[in-house]
Amino acid sequence: MAKKQKLKIIPLGGVNEIGKNVTVIEYGDEILVIDCGLTFPSESMLGIDLVIPDTSYLARNREKVVGLLLTHGHEDHIGAVPYAFKNFNAPIYGSRMTLGLVEQKLKEHGMVSEVELCTVKPGTVKKIGQSFKVEFINVNHSIAGALALAIHTPVGVLVHTGDFKIDCTPINGEMINLTRFGDLGKAGVLALFSDSTNVERAGYTMSERTVGERFDEIFEKSRDKRIIVASFASNVHRIQQIINSAVRNKRKVAVSGRSMQTICEVAAELGYLHIPKGTIINLEDINRYKPQQLVIVTTGSQGEPMSALTRMAFSDHKSVEIGHGDLVILSANPIPGNEKAVSNVINELFKKGAEVIYESLAEVHVSGHACREELKVILGLVKPKYFIPVHGEYRHLVRHAKLGEQMGIDPDNIFIMSIGEVLEMNGESAGVTGNVTAGQVLVDGIGVGDVGNIVLRDRKHLGEEGLIVAVVTLSHDKEILAGPDIISRGFVYVRESEDLMEEMKDIVADAVYAGRASGNGDWNTIKSSVRNSLSDYIFEKTKRKPMILPVITEV
Amino acid sequence: MAKKQKLKIIPLGGVNEIGKNVTVIEYGDEILVIDCGLTFPSESMLGIDLVIPDTSYLARNREKVVGLLLTHGHEDHIGAVPYAFKNFNAPIYGSRMTLGLVEQKLKEHGMVSEVELCTVKPGTVKKIGQSFKVEFINVNHSIAGALALAIHTPVGVLVHTGDFKIDCTPINGEMINLTRFGDLGKAGVLALFSDSTNVERAGYTMSERTVGERFDEIFEKSRDKRIIVASFASNVHRIQQIINSAVRNKRKVAVSGRSMQTICEVAAELGYLHIPKGTIINLEDINRYKPQQLVIVTTGSQGEPMSALTRMAFSDHKSVEIGHGDLVILSANPIPGNEKAVSNVINELFKKGAEVIYESLAEVHVSGHACREELKVILGLVKPKYFIPVHGEYRHLVRHAKLGEQMGIDPDNIFIMSIGEVLEMNGESAGVTGNVTAGQVLVDGIGVGDVGNIVLRDRKHLGEEGLIVAVVTLSHDKEILAGPDIISRGFVYVRESEDLMEEMKDIVADAVYAGRASGNGDWNTIKSSVRNSLSDYIFEKTKRKPMILPVITEV
Repeated sequence: MAKKQKLKIIPLGGVNEIGKNVTVIEYGDEILVIDCGLTFPSESMLGIDLVIPDTSYLARNREKVVGLLLTHGHEDHIGAVPYAFKNFNAPIYGSRMTLGLVEQKLKEHGMVSEVELCTVKPGTVKKIGQSFKVEFINVNHSIAGALALAIHTPVGVLVHTGDFKIDCTPINGEMINLTRFGDLGKAGVLALFSDSTNVERAGYTMSERTVGERFDEIFEKSRDKRIIVASFASNVHRIQQIINSAVRNKRKVAVSGRSMQTICEVAAELGYLHIPKGTIINLEDINRYKPQQLVIVTTGSQGEPMSALTRMAFSDHKSVEIGHGDLVILSANPIPGNEKAVSNVINELFKKGAEVIYESLAEVHVSGHACREELKVILGLVKPKYFIPVHGEYRHLVRHAKLGEQMGIDPDNIFIMSIGEVLEMNGESAGVTGNVTAGQVLVDGIGVGDVGNIVLRDRKHLGEEGLIVAVVTLSHDKEILAGPDIISRGFVYVRESEDLMEEMKDIVADAVYAGRASGNGDWNTIKSSVRNSLSDYIFEKTKRKPMILPVITEV
Repeated sequence: MAKKQKLKIIPLGGVNEIGKNVTVIEYGDEILVIDCGLTFPSESMLGIDLVIPDTSYLARNREKVVGLLLTHGHEDHIGAVPYAFKNFNAPIYGSRMTLGLVEQKLKEHGMVSEVELCTVKPGTVKKIGQSFKVEFINVNHSIAGALALAIHTPVGVLVHTGDFKIDCTPINGEMINLTRFGDLGKAGVLALFSDSTNVERAGYTMSERTVGERFDEIFEKSRDKRIIVASFASNVHRIQQIINSAVRNKRKVAVSGRSMQTICEVAAELGYLHIPKGTIINLEDINRYKPQQLVIVTTGSQGEPMSALTRMAFSDHKSVEIGHGDLVILSANPIPGNEKAVSNVINELFKKGAEVIYESLAEVHVSGHACREELKVILGLVKPKYFIPVHGEYRHLVRHAKLGEQMGIDPDNIFIMSIGEVLEMNGESAGVTGNVTAGQVLVDGIGVGDVGNIVLRDRKHLGEEGLIVAVVTLSHDKEILAGPDIISRGFVYVRESEDLMEEMKDIVADAVYAGRASGNGDWNTIKSSVRNSLSDYIFEKTKRKPMILPVITEV
């Protein structure tokens, strides 16, 4: 019998969150890919639209890739599919909901005909390639159609939770299949990859159903008001509950925001969203109804500048005008980094006279991720030999690792991985053996990867300090024929700084002649002379350091 | 008897928080100013260092200003003194601690000799000008020497809480003088101005002392580790408690970070900080001690890029190297907007192997502001005729106003003010009667107010999209003598876009001739032609909109 090869595990993507966007499982000459998501740019990535994982490893191993498994349909798990797919060519597996959203994306990129989509259900088992048998397991999460994975390999079984929580009273579908996790654990699991997002929160995450109860109470108490609810478009369960409360209170529902409209259509078509006939009305028709007959479901729960709720708050929405008769519910918590934007929207809504219900006031949101006690349940059921905490910042992974230790896993068998690291394991041992190219690729407009650190450094410099262009035209013997002229942008009000601008011209002229006289008097010497003199002068006068571009032409 | 004049109240400063940075109290030809603080720039204010209030109203009424009252020494209450002081010339009143910090600031600006500083104590009553008698009342807050104000005017008594909490077991000094608030209330208060910061939090703010108890527990449990505690430099009570726990555990204390060192010196000198002899050691000498004999107190609790803790976390600190033997306590909550920066620092500390204790893990911080029940106590004691919630975003003021209503204040007598509004009141009525110039002034380097919206808009454009400079030299008859050349910064990697750059040159050349031929063929026409053609071309090719600067020279 041939010696068993080792199983390789490589997290390829994620910016802050390790093992999130895309993970490679490799055995022999076959690769399975788990998820293919994007992240949104951090503040320091000026002008960047999206951040996708570097999947060049897949491109270099194109022939090996046998399948892409999608755990659920959130952007950080599916958003990079259209970008990464050109690096491999293999079927994509996911639930109807997940693949419905992927299809939408592929259509936008004109790629839908190139891709083989394989719908799976909880309980489905697929043989993929020669080495893998993949089992899809029902879990609860803040989007419908979320699945965990049990990947049977020649070396052992890998269990990957995807994003999950334990919700014993979910809105649609079943509670998480804990029995199956337990059976897998009993039979023996080589490694567990588990969601670390909420490891800092004690106890249990509340059931999604509690939010619906809260909606009912609020709707009941606010009979005389128009109700506007902002939430994540992808949280179909939340939208279902808003619709349920609306129907119970004989209100019509209008949907605002393009992504909200798209998801409602996809989810209703696929049977994830049940909307009684006559409930939905067009947003343009809201004026035919009294305020107390209406619920408006909208995007913008994160204070996104162009979102429907933000436009409503700042009186920039074409159909909805906020006033004293409105009750606005923000049914979502701000994602880290969005706190200020959300806060600004809330202040504006208050200024318009609306009543606003948000996180610090009422339980109108629950998380989609497992808290500590739930994480312990999974660890206790699966009882893996190796444990790899995933989906979290470094500190979350450390804390999840500690939780694993408390649950009896040998600390030497717990791995906190970095992006690009290769973890190799067989039945007897495991360890990090190397690194592959991985990390992030920035998307700006239609450019993918053409903006990197140098460009970002220049953007930061320009953005914070502004620009001075010094223009001089020289003759062949380097006499000044025209200029110096000074052009500034983002520096100071020119009208208030005319003297400064005039003095800069003198500095540049002097620097040109000084440069010509010194060293070999070539272009670079003259340019450096201008840049340095001007920089010193401006810093002395203003304590600022604008970017300085000497434009020196010879005719 | 002359008819009584009306009392005017004008909040002049604050960006998001209304009535925070500076407030004017005006009666007849006399003006009292309350506080003179700054705010830190929001993310959209690229490159801006500080935001100070527009105090031109004081400059126009220079002769009227009879005094500046400082409630406490936080930056948002004293930080603009050196900038605003040139707009008036009147004595400054505050506690020893507050004035000690102001003096430090004035020294840095070389202004200390120009200013008259009057130290007051809790209980001090000062006649200021002809119309005002000001009483300073002890309150608790996260900085020592915090005072509330009772301003006796010919129209009635105004009570201003400043920033406060009710701490019955404070670290130094007395608990807030509730009796005096009650006596003022019994005698009759015209208007109350009260701190709204924590109005969204139910119940009571915990005593500062609870943090000390927690420090003791942590120090006790971590006998084998070096302990590093990050906190706000100005929180002298917190630093006192760190020192107390250190002394009890026979550890030496080293101080890191310039502002922390300054404040420790000022506070020790003024008697606000009690440090047993031999406790403090120089940071350079820490290697003479074992880790378990040390506590390092440091700045950087907000993840500020240049702060001591951030430099430690990223291995950029000259004296402190973080490792497995370290326990780091973040004794502060992230201020809204700083969450991500703090999170990054925590992750780095974990990566270095340190143990980290922060907000979600332990009660190592308490707020300095009153929660709802405390706010109700003040409302109940002071029983004002008019109520003006201050120090909060709009939504906080609305919620504080509702609390006032619940406490029996006539809703018509509650005013949520905007910056620059003039509220006039006499004994019988009150109402907003007008507006004065107010708002924010941006400070960039040594420039005050020379960066405004146009400059910020250009910075945003440059920062997000980058820059293309198109350089052409023309003869008098507008033939191209040199160029076109293209210079780009912050746009794309030039090496990967050589074709694009070459094509841009052709576009520019064509545009020059098109411009020359069209209309009157003058400079502006040619420039517009270049700008428009290039802009269209770049957007078509890249979906980006860099700033385009045509530099066209004639020789």
